[in-house]
Amino acid sequence: MKLATLRDGTRDGRLIVVSRDLKRAAPADGIAPTLLAALEGWSAASGALVRLSEGVNAGRAPGLFDLDVRRLCAPLPRTWQWLDGSAFHSHGDLMQQVFRLAPIEGKLTRPLMYQGGSDDLLGACDDMPLPSENDGIDFEAEIAVVLDRVPMGTPPSRALEHVRLIMLANDASLRVLAPVEMKTGFGWVQAKPSTAFSPVAVTPDELGPAWRDGRVCLPLHVHWNEREFGHPSGAEMGFGFHELVAHAAYSRNLSAGTIIGSGTVSNETYRTVGSACIAERRGIELVDTGRSVTEYMKFGDRVRIEMFDASGQSIFGAIDQKIVRAS
Amino acid sequence: MKLATLRDGTRDGRLIVVSRDLKRAAPADGIAPTLLAALEGWSAASGALVRLSEGVNAGRAPGLFDLDVRRLCAPLPRTWQWLDGSAFHSHGDLMQQVFRLAPIEGKLTRPLMYQGGSDDLLGACDDMPLPSENDGIDFEAEIAVVLDRVPMGTPPSRALEHVRLIMLANDASLRVLAPVEMKTGFGWVQAKPSTAFSPVAVTPDELGPAWRDGRVCLPLHVHWNEREFGHPSGAEMGFGFHELVAHAAYSRNLSAGTIIGSGTVSNETYRTVGSACIAERRGIELVDTGRSVTEYMKFGDRVRIEMFDASGQSIFGAIDQKIVRAS
Repeated sequence: MKLATLRDGTRDGRLIVVSRDLKRAAPADGIAPTLLAALEGWSAASGALVRLSEGVNAGRAPGLFDLDVRRLCAPLPRTWQWLDGSAFHSHGDLMQQVFRLAPIEGKLTRPLMYQGGSDDLLGACDDMPLPSENDGIDFEAEIAVVLDRVPMGTPPSRALEHVRLIMLANDASLRVLAPVEMKTGFGWVQAKPSTAFSPVAVTPDELGPAWRDGRVCLPLHVHWNEREFGHPSGAEMGFGFHELVAHAAYSRNLSAGTIIGSGTVSNETYRTVGSACIAERRGIELVDTGRSVTEYMKFGDRVRIEMFDASGQSIFGAIDQKIVRAS
Repeated sequence: MKLATLRDGTRDGRLIVVSRDLKRAAPADGIAPTLLAALEGWSAASGALVRLSEGVNAGRAPGLFDLDVRRLCAPLPRTWQWLDGSAFHSHGDLMQQVFRLAPIEGKLTRPLMYQGGSDDLLGACDDMPLPSENDGIDFEAEIAVVLDRVPMGTPPSRALEHVRLIMLANDASLRVLAPVEMKTGFGWVQAKPSTAFSPVAVTPDELGPAWRDGRVCLPLHVHWNEREFGHPSGAEMGFGFHELVAHAAYSRNLSAGTIIGSGTVSNETYRTVGSACIAERRGIELVDTGRSVTEYMKFGDRVRIEMFDASGQSIFGAIDQKIVRAS
């Protein structure tokens, strides 16, 4: 099942069910007004949503319409919590190089995670307004899961039961500010503007065997200004989402609608598969030549983030957005 | 005006207006169903709320009832964002001692801030369930402000216009986990369980001249198991709330309902006025004797946090809660 949120002038938008080929959709607000409401009452809503989804895929559903993804906001335009891991070890290693950071103690045995703003999330085709090109604007292509309520103390073995939806994210970063904030130990506030998400969120079954061991085992395709930048696979996550969820729930309940991110997707074979953020490329350049030459994004630059199934069908639709100066 | 949220079985509770002496209240859900809704439409709601408040204070309002603060949840039982500063420099200095941390670069010129969980906030009299006494359970008594929508780039000079409400917080910390997470640079997730807030949130005018320069210039009284622990004043904030709000809004819009915290209230005269968290006392002991002797909280321990006006009236009501083992 594929779900999305239609922009309708309200802060939370209107829930719709989208066909597998992303071409058609039908309103689902008779079942739950918003995706957040559906997640809060998942056991009551999901059966009816699945039945509607079957109708949409078969081309017969009340109110069926041709989908224009530009009319979508983020599947969750706002939600109660956005916790982002950094679960790809090769990403961490390169960040350490490029920002000349000390190695993080215990990072192979204990997930890294920060809390980001979840109050103002961007749609896949929304412009991303930022204050200054001098802040080192970078994209970060990630995979994220959406949870129903997870009680405090849920172990990894029970955590995947709570993964209701999967989506892609552009967790943009301001790389000049990031190391300054990181050195305080308090995590990032200014360095993390609004995150953008893929047009649709899908239930794990849509991924078939590519969803295994709490990982999305498919390449994530990233383009910067129409040029391929990388296609690292989600299979190399150093911790699975079950471990990230359990980590987050150690001392708190996670409310329905919580989003957990993978961190920038990255593979050990980065020389072959490329990267999912600019800072990594700068790290590789530094290792190879002693100097980073690739510059960060300028206003007007675009980033495109997409993932395809075995048949070449875009699973989540594309994040395709432009960086603009905040007015 | 004093606002609170009555527990009614829903996740967001029911908005009520409370009398200045905290003895009576009247339902305000005819004006806005929840406090979050009131904040999202503040310009429309506030006039009617003020008129209702005048009636409540005069002892005549529809549905007026005697208030039992134990029936209240947090003013915002959940909200879109909770950003907590660390604006009292003497607190930071003592934390540096007790956790043997390196000095934080630029901390006198750039506010420190982390993002905490805002999806599951505790009421003032709620038990605080935690997984283990071995994690170093500490209270942290703070002052917090609640904002309406703050556009990205709002300068300090315009930030106080967005402060709609003020309240107290117990931003509990798990001190064994906190330095481990801090050293990663990612901020705190496991070390920061659900934060609790005072029974009522008040508009800044309720503080009279004690609200000045973006600071609440009154002592914050903290008791641990019925014994006085400290009463440091909010006047010594190293950054005012206007600076914290502007810092947070540098690269993002802050949605209505965002809470910004002061960090643990702390004064340079901590030997006289005491502290608002246990870790500070342990830092002082370390400085004085080379050894911290005060232990962290045990299950069954209580903390009480309260602030009084010049006439001795409790402004926000008391946070008075017990630490319990999570079931």
